[in-house]
Amino acid sequence: MIALHFENGQLVEKETDTPQVRRGEALVKIQYAGICSTDLEILKGYMDFSGIPGHEFVGTVETPRSLAGRRVTGEINISCGRCELCRRGLGKHCRERTVLGIAGRDGVFAEYITLPMSNLHVVPDGVSDEEAAFTELLAAACEIPERVYISQSCRVAVLGDGRLAAMAAQVLRLKTKGLTVLGVEPEKMRVIAGLGIDTLHAAAIPTMKGTFDVVVECTGSRMGLPDAIDMIRPHGTIVLKSTFHAPLKWNPSRIAVDEITIVGSRCGPFETALGLLQKKKVVTAPFLTSVYPFKKWQTAFRRARQKNSFKVLLDMQA
Amino acid sequence: MIALHFENGQLVEKETDTPQVRRGEALVKIQYAGICSTDLEILKGYMDFSGIPGHEFVGTVETPRSLAGRRVTGEINISCGRCELCRRGLGKHCRERTVLGIAGRDGVFAEYITLPMSNLHVVPDGVSDEEAAFTELLAAACEIPERVYISQSCRVAVLGDGRLAAMAAQVLRLKTKGLTVLGVEPEKMRVIAGLGIDTLHAAAIPTMKGTFDVVVECTGSRMGLPDAIDMIRPHGTIVLKSTFHAPLKWNPSRIAVDEITIVGSRCGPFETALGLLQKKKVVTAPFLTSVYPFKKWQTAFRRARQKNSFKVLLDMQA
Repeated sequence: MIALHFENGQLVEKETDTPQVRRGEALVKIQYAGICSTDLEILKGYMDFSGIPGHEFVGTVETPRSLAGRRVTGEINISCGRCELCRRGLGKHCRERTVLGIAGRDGVFAEYITLPMSNLHVVPDGVSDEEAAFTELLAAACEIPERVYISQSCRVAVLGDGRLAAMAAQVLRLKTKGLTVLGVEPEKMRVIAGLGIDTLHAAAIPTMKGTFDVVVECTGSRMGLPDAIDMIRPHGTIVLKSTFHAPLKWNPSRIAVDEITIVGSRCGPFETALGLLQKKKVVTAPFLTSVYPFKKWQTAFRRARQKNSFKVLLDMQA
Repeated sequence: MIALHFENGQLVEKETDTPQVRRGEALVKIQYAGICSTDLEILKGYMDFSGIPGHEFVGTVETPRSLAGRRVTGEINISCGRCELCRRGLGKHCRERTVLGIAGRDGVFAEYITLPMSNLHVVPDGVSDEEAAFTELLAAACEIPERVYISQSCRVAVLGDGRLAAMAAQVLRLKTKGLTVLGVEPEKMRVIAGLGIDTLHAAAIPTMKGTFDVVVECTGSRMGLPDAIDMIRPHGTIVLKSTFHAPLKWNPSRIAVDEITIVGSRCGPFETALGLLQKKKVVTAPFLTSVYPFKKWQTAFRRARQKNSFKVLLDMQA
């Protein structure tokens, strides 16, 4: 099969064997693979990954026969199922885990992948392939209200204007009337505002010191955390979503002085995300920038890096 | 009156007027003033403070007559009582606040201070002046279980071997059987171990990756937070106590990846602290390094800076 490999700091197209299916696993033919900020960070050296990157996908099961032909998406953490963390229900943090296209396991910029069947989620009828490709991203947004209680009167800021910010904003406006998205890219902010969500340019942050009860940091940038701390009220809660390769020089004393809570958050519940897509409570179409045929992967990665891009998909079958 | 002033980067002894008592305030004659890590950071430039530093004290009320002669200690945040944060019960975060000896208000390295009467707590009989001088510090430790639920089976690490760590360890061993204190100074670790608390040298941190459910960071050092993140299990909670002047260069991505919660914590409940002292559930005597007469303040500050020091008090009446 054809796949993208990241090795020696370079992303290259290569012909490799179709992956071998182990016990309990399914072989999935990838339809769409999404390019995520984490992938772009991996190409800068984050996680010291080598192999086939990519973790957002929708595809069709080839084997086993019991699932063959079903459209699926899948959770990215492959855990041992036996350790203390797995037994506590924290399988996504299993120390023996591999992570699809991120750590120790080949990912979805390929014609085929294998995944444990327990990681798969069948895409409901009425959810398109393009929508289903947003499931992993939307699940990460759905995790926010799982970790932090958000009431209707809660003043919530989403910091960022990217793909995750757009999903987080849609999930959070189901919880609160006090939502504002702060970003910088006028084109992307217009799309978010087009959904009837309040938006503000991030240049306003210095005038909003201590304003918000909850700040959801989705910038993907190392300045996201210091900015969030500027905006949060004393005793407020920051949800930290961004991971990045380069370190930050910064004084965290304000966390103690203002008794701020910071909640790190990564992957979330796929069933909740698929349910929101099925009920059309979250839209993805305005956030699908482009779909490129696999052969145009270099153009696709360039497009994904552009500041005015939301989600770029690779069509692995075109 | 005589007092220590911090001005132009220097701590100097000066004769000044006794402070004027405003409406609602008491005039307190200071008996003991404690030297805290925050004071030592202020002398390095933290908070850009100028004036009389110091915020840990026990003293005797001079006026008003209704309280005259009572032994008191006092909360350090002086809030407006009218703003949104004050009305929410978050007076210690009032944006208009001054903070005794830390921000906008002269502190306790002086013969007299003024404080609003609502900030004062009468020291119960059976609590000595020396013990009462630990109240503000112990209250900060008592805030930890107010912010984070700690069960009997919770594996808790206190990171640090200083005065706050010693108080935190004593408060937390009332909550859990799984307490370990990690520090570096052999002399101080021996004193903590002498209370029957498990101790380990901080050199063991790299072997304890992901071990603890809760890590209470009391190092006073900027490496405390990265060390705490090394020790915490995925989905665990770090209580961050340290404030310091110099910034930290560091990558916070692990917070998101391991979905860690960080809870900043500063001042705590004085009544709880005084109650623990009165019931002898917390001891302070092993942690009182020295009491110096005021005239020897330079020696006292030198002693407080030494790595093997716990609490150093200035006797303002000697």
